[in-house]
Amino acid sequence: MTGVVVSPRANKPAYKPSADLAEEVLAGSRLAIARMISRAESGRAEAEDALAELYRRSGKAHIIGITGVPGAGKSTLVSALIKALSAGGHKVGVIAVDPSSPFSGGAIMGDRLRMNEVIDANQAFVRSMATRGHLGGLARSTLQAVDVLDAAGYSPIIIETVGVGQDEVEIVTAAHTVVVLSAPGLGDDIQAIKAGILEIADIHVVSKADKPDAPATVAALKGMMALGAGIRDTGWNTPILPVSSVSGLRMDELCKTIGEHLDHLRASGELAARERNMARTRILGTAKDLFQKRFDEDAEKLESELQAVLKREMDPHAAAQILLGWEKESPEK
Amino acid sequence: MTGVVVSPRANKPAYKPSADLAEEVLAGSRLAIARMISRAESGRAEAEDALAELYRRSGKAHIIGITGVPGAGKSTLVSALIKALSAGGHKVGVIAVDPSSPFSGGAIMGDRLRMNEVIDANQAFVRSMATRGHLGGLARSTLQAVDVLDAAGYSPIIIETVGVGQDEVEIVTAAHTVVVLSAPGLGDDIQAIKAGILEIADIHVVSKADKPDAPATVAALKGMMALGAGIRDTGWNTPILPVSSVSGLRMDELCKTIGEHLDHLRASGELAARERNMARTRILGTAKDLFQKRFDEDAEKLESELQAVLKREMDPHAAAQILLGWEKESPEK
Repeated sequence: MTGVVVSPRANKPAYKPSADLAEEVLAGSRLAIARMISRAESGRAEAEDALAELYRRSGKAHIIGITGVPGAGKSTLVSALIKALSAGGHKVGVIAVDPSSPFSGGAIMGDRLRMNEVIDANQAFVRSMATRGHLGGLARSTLQAVDVLDAAGYSPIIIETVGVGQDEVEIVTAAHTVVVLSAPGLGDDIQAIKAGILEIADIHVVSKADKPDAPATVAALKGMMALGAGIRDTGWNTPILPVSSVSGLRMDELCKTIGEHLDHLRASGELAARERNMARTRILGTAKDLFQKRFDEDAEKLESELQAVLKREMDPHAAAQILLGWEKESPEK
Repeated sequence: MTGVVVSPRANKPAYKPSADLAEEVLAGSRLAIARMISRAESGRAEAEDALAELYRRSGKAHIIGITGVPGAGKSTLVSALIKALSAGGHKVGVIAVDPSSPFSGGAIMGDRLRMNEVIDANQAFVRSMATRGHLGGLARSTLQAVDVLDAAGYSPIIIETVGVGQDEVEIVTAAHTVVVLSAPGLGDDIQAIKAGILEIADIHVVSKADKPDAPATVAALKGMMALGAGIRDTGWNTPILPVSSVSGLRMDELCKTIGEHLDHLRASGELAARERNMARTRILGTAKDLFQKRFDEDAEKLESELQAVLKREMDPHAAAQILLGWEKESPEK
């Protein structure tokens, strides 16, 4: 083929340095927020300094994790929460990491349109992220997106996670307040017991409270909590709230309870403990991600150790220590 | 309370240095193998050198991964394979990492007794391991247990994994030949499609072939493979074998196919590629485990970085680079 080649990039707006973008994020620009989150998501090295600066300017937001099995109605609850929290004067941010979320395009079109109306009417910032961490848990970029919204003045910031697998429990290391959503009729015992999800709940919400089997779900949760399953020993009495996201039933009460939980965290000293745990997990997770990335990007980097291990001249433990740059430690008893 | 204190350890046999144990493993002692695997499982630093030595003496075994959803009949298949492979003159090793496996005490007593008879009659070595890796996948100790059996002359060595979650796909990085087991009537589409399990199969086995709905399961697998889902482009035509582990139906054919797959790996050069991938994954996984362990064991170690991150004076990325001992890299475009 011949002819005049028109670069597809010819009409693209000029690339804005991340440092400039960060300034605009701090000033609250929605476009800058969206672009900065995209840079975090694509892992651009150029954006690291700006993201670091935004991290240092963050730390004011109340971070809420919302989890529960697929089908429990997480996105509908988030929608209702955006409405209720916005009505209370909050500037709400949402990061949805659930690929089945309507925010991520995973649900039927009608749902998505309704969500968009809610978002537009309330000046909330909602973003879905597809990426997952190397470590099976929350991706580094998810936490960076929370930083961006935090630095831009959003609070609370809701992380909507996919309610599947052990990884789910990791939301505890990313949120101050964990809301676990259960739906009537989805197999109450299984959905609540699974993956230790009872233990991580600060607030239990039962969706579709207008359904006839909602009280049975509430009773099942109460029963399991009476067995001691749901109680973290911080003096907080984990409430169980039946709500209807569609009719708005008890949505104000849920907002109030979320606020009360934050007050409790502050008063009990638990906030500092949680933030410490969040920071610790994040530093270690970031280190492991960086470590993996170094070897993913440069196949040559571990070639000599790899050859030695393949030839059985060296064992994987010794090779790992060389990669880490550690001296071989002396054996301990 | 007063009285003569009798140490509970008084009657324990003397602790044998791991180096001596390793010698006995190489000589084939079952007791030494069991003790060495226990030391790997407990992560004793004292055993590292001996385990490294056993790794260097390993590399001869054919490693077979067996996976499939819970209830597919993995343990019964393993039992039947032990019988058939032993009859063919093989010294079979099994590491079961499925907590619901009868080998791990997860099933009803009758199952377990039957397993034990099979094991005793065939001189196979079967061990269950409860530990899971920090990274959600196969634990370091699982791979070390395979080394121990390999160095002791067992081959093939079967890893029976719990067929749940994305992690399952990691068996590809630990085994030469992956057998995926499906059972009739368990929701064929879901069990096969889930977690990309079709892509990892070198051999599909359909259990309970005497059941009336077994042909439908075979047809469903064939249909999905015709769509291109199951084909790795190495010239191997992934077979689908309906078997009955109880009656022994086609068990010899399965053993033959497993052998043919190994021949194919050798002839095509795929064996070297897989072993390279296995070693690479293992080195990086070990490094991340060692890294996490260092900070789990010594809380003080990241205290100053943690404080700086909590005070928002430093971002997690910078802290991670300090922990890794890396200079901050210059930004790239």
